Amino acid sequence: MNIIKVSAGSRTSAVAGAIAGVVREHRRADVQAIGAGAVNQSIKAIAIARNYLQEDGIDIICVPEFTSVDIDGKERTALRLVIEPR
Amino acid sequence: MNIIKVSAGSRTSAVAGAIAGVVREHRRADVQAIGAGAVNQSIKAIAIARNYLQEDGIDIICVPEFTSVDIDGKERTALRLVIEPR
Repeated sequence: MNIIKVSAGSRTSAVAGAIAGVVREHRRADVQAIGAGAVNQSIKAIAIARNYLQEDGIDIICVPEFTSVDIDGKERTALRLVIEPR
Repeated sequence: MNIIKVSAGSRTSAVAGAIAGVVREHRRADVQAIGAGAVNQSIKAIAIARNYLQEDGIDIICVPEFTSVDIDGKERTALRLVIEPR
Protein backbone atom coordinates (compact mmCIF):
# COMPACT_ATOMS: atom_id res chain seq x y z
CA MET A 1 0.00 0.00 0.00
CA ASN A 2 1.41 3.39 -0.95
CA ILE A 3 1.37 6.00 1.80
CA ILE A 4 1.03 9.67 0.83
CA LYS A 5 3.52 11.45 3.10
CA VAL A 6 2.59 15.09 3.68
CA SER A 7 4.88 17.78 5.11
CA ALA A 8 4.18 21.33 6.27
CA GLY A 9 5.50 22.54 2.92
CA SER A 10 3.36 20.25 0.75
CA ARG A 11 1.01 22.04 -1.65
CA THR A 12 -2.59 21.22 -0.74
CA SER A 13 -3.75 21.05 -4.37
CA ALA A 14 -0.99 18.55 -5.23
CA VAL A 15 -1.80 16.38 -2.20
CA ALA A 16 -5.53 16.61 -3.02
CA GLY A 17 -4.83 15.42 -6.55
CA ALA A 18 -2.77 12.51 -5.23
CA ILE A 19 -5.51 11.51 -2.76
CA ALA A 20 -8.21 11.67 -5.44
CA GLY A 21 -6.11 9.60 -7.84
CA VAL A 22 -5.31 6.88 -5.28
CA VAL A 23 -8.94 6.69 -4.07
CA ARG A 24 -10.21 6.39 -7.66
CA GLU A 25 -7.77 3.53 -8.32
CA HIS A 26 -7.65 1.68 -4.98
CA ARG A 27 -10.84 2.84 -3.15
CA ARG A 28 -8.60 3.88 -0.25
CA ALA A 29 -5.73 6.26 0.44
CA ASP A 30 -3.45 6.50 3.47
CA VAL A 31 -2.00 9.90 4.37
CA GLN A 32 0.78 10.26 6.95
CA ALA A 33 1.61 13.55 8.69
CA ILE A 34 4.04 14.48 11.47
CA GLY A 35 3.57 17.86 13.16
CA ALA A 36 0.91 20.56 13.14
CA GLY A 37 1.82 22.08 9.77
CA ALA A 38 1.73 18.70 8.04
CA VAL A 39 -1.58 17.73 9.67
CA ASN A 40 -3.11 21.05 8.61
CA GLN A 41 -1.99 20.63 4.99
CA SER A 42 -3.34 17.06 5.02
CA ILE A 43 -6.81 18.01 6.27
CA LYS A 44 -7.09 20.92 3.82
CA ALA A 45 -6.04 18.54 1.03
CA ILE A 46 -8.69 16.01 2.08
CA ALA A 47 -11.36 18.76 2.03
CA ILE A 48 -10.27 19.70 -1.51
CA ALA A 49 -10.12 16.03 -2.61
CA ARG A 50 -13.71 15.60 -1.33
CA ASN A 51 -14.82 18.27 -3.81
CA TYR A 52 -12.86 16.63 -6.66
CA LEU A 53 -14.31 13.19 -5.92
CA GLN A 54 -17.88 14.39 -5.37
CA GLU A 55 -17.87 15.27 -9.07
CA ASP A 56 -17.33 11.52 -9.65
CA GLY A 57 -20.08 10.61 -7.17
CA ILE A 58 -17.56 9.45 -4.54
CA ASP A 59 -18.19 10.75 -0.99
CA ILE A 60 -14.99 10.27 1.04
CA ILE A 61 -14.59 10.15 4.80
CA CYS A 62 -11.44 10.21 6.91
CA VAL A 63 -10.38 8.09 9.91
CA PRO A 64 -7.53 9.58 11.97
CA GLU A 65 -5.33 7.32 14.09
CA PHE A 66 -1.97 7.52 15.80
CA THR A 67 0.90 5.46 14.45
CA SER A 68 4.61 5.11 15.21
CA VAL A 69 7.16 5.73 12.49
CA ASP A 70 10.93 5.35 12.43
CA ILE A 71 12.70 8.57 11.40
CA ASP A 72 16.50 8.21 11.27
CA GLY A 73 16.37 5.47 13.90
CA LYS A 74 14.15 7.45 16.26
CA GLU A 75 10.54 6.48 16.97
CA ARG A 76 8.13 9.35 16.34
CA THR A 77 4.36 9.58 16.63
CA ALA A 78 2.64 10.35 13.35
CA LEU A 79 -0.99 10.79 12.40
CA ARG A 80 -2.31 8.33 9.87
CA LEU A 81 -5.39 9.51 8.01
CA VAL A 82 -7.21 6.67 6.28
CA ILE A 83 -9.45 7.94 3.48
CA GLU A 84 -12.26 5.78 2.12
CA PRO A 85 -15.58 6.15 0.34
CA ARG A 86 -18.38 6.50 2.92
CA MET B 1 -26.38 22.46 16.95
CA ASN B 2 -23.47 23.03 19.32
CA ILE B 3 -20.10 23.52 17.66
CA ILE B 4 -16.95 22.47 19.53
CA LYS B 5 -14.48 25.29 18.87
CA VAL B 6 -10.88 24.16 19.16
CA SER B 7 -7.82 26.42 19.45
CA ALA B 8 -4.10 25.70 19.26
CA GLY B 9 -4.04 25.76 23.07
CA SER B 10 -6.94 23.36 23.62
CA ARG B 11 -6.08 20.19 25.53
CA THR B 12 -6.61 17.17 23.28
CA SER B 13 -7.98 14.97 26.07
CA ALA B 14 -10.58 17.62 27.00
CA VAL B 15 -11.64 18.05 23.37
CA ALA B 16 -11.75 14.25 22.94
CA GLY B 17 -14.04 13.97 25.96
CA ALA B 18 -16.33 16.67 24.56
CA ILE B 19 -16.48 14.97 21.16
CA ALA B 20 -17.26 11.58 22.71
CA GLY B 21 -19.99 13.07 24.91
CA VAL B 22 -21.68 14.94 22.05
CA VAL B 23 -21.52 11.90 19.72
CA ARG B 24 -23.00 9.65 22.41
CA GLU B 25 -25.89 12.09 22.92
CA HIS B 26 -26.53 13.45 19.42
CA ARG B 27 -24.86 10.86 17.10
CA ARG B 28 -22.91 13.73 15.54
CA ALA B 29 -20.40 16.37 16.62
CA ASP B 30 -19.13 19.42 14.73
CA VAL B 31 -15.61 20.65 15.45
CA GLN B 32 -14.38 24.03 14.16
CA ALA B 33 -10.69 24.96 13.89
CA ILE B 34 -8.86 27.98 12.49
CA GLY B 35 -5.12 27.66 11.86
CA ALA B 36 -2.62 24.80 11.82
CA GLY B 37 -2.28 24.45 15.61
CA ALA B 38 -6.04 24.24 16.08
CA VAL B 39 -6.47 21.73 13.24
CA ASN B 40 -3.69 19.56 14.71
CA GLN B 41 -5.27 19.55 18.17
CA SER B 42 -8.65 18.73 16.62
CA ILE B 43 -7.39 15.73 14.65
CA LYS B 44 -5.46 14.36 17.64
CA ALA B 45 -8.61 14.77 19.75
CA ILE B 46 -10.69 12.89 17.16
CA ALA B 47 -8.15 10.02 17.16
CA ILE B 48 -8.41 9.87 20.98
CA ALA B 49 -12.24 10.11 20.89
CA ARG B 50 -12.26 7.16 18.44
CA ASN B 51 -10.58 5.04 21.10
CA TYR B 52 -13.05 6.21 23.78
CA LEU B 53 -16.07 5.48 21.59
CA GLN B 54 -14.80 2.14 20.28
CA GLU B 55 -15.18 0.90 23.85
CA ASP B 56 -18.91 1.69 23.41
CA GLY B 57 -18.99 -0.04 20.01
CA ILE B 58 -19.20 3.29 18.14
CA ASP B 59 -16.80 3.62 15.16
CA ILE B 60 -16.55 7.33 14.26
CA ILE B 61 -15.40 8.87 11.00
CA CYS B 62 -14.60 12.48 10.17
CA VAL B 63 -15.61 14.66 7.19
CA PRO B 64 -13.48 17.81 6.75
CA GLU B 65 -14.89 20.79 4.87
CA PHE B 66 -14.09 24.47 4.51
CA THR B 67 -16.45 27.02 6.03
CA SER B 68 -16.46 30.79 6.48
CA VAL B 69 -16.73 32.29 9.94
CA ASP B 70 -17.06 35.87 11.13
CA ILE B 71 -14.31 36.85 13.61
CA ASP B 72 -14.65 40.43 14.87
CA GLY B 73 -16.38 41.46 11.65
CA LYS B 74 -13.76 39.84 9.40
CA GLU B 75 -14.49 36.77 7.29
CA ARG B 76 -12.03 33.94 7.91
CA THR B 77 -11.77 30.46 6.49
CA ALA B 78 -12.16 27.73 9.09
CA LEU B 79 -12.10 23.96 8.88
CA ARG B 80 -15.29 22.23 9.95
CA LEU B 81 -14.83 18.61 10.96
CA VAL B 82 -18.11 16.71 11.03
CA ILE B 83 -17.86 13.59 13.19
CA GLU B 84 -20.39 10.78 12.82
CA PRO B 85 -20.66 7.05 13.42
CA ARG B 86 -19.52 5.15 10.32
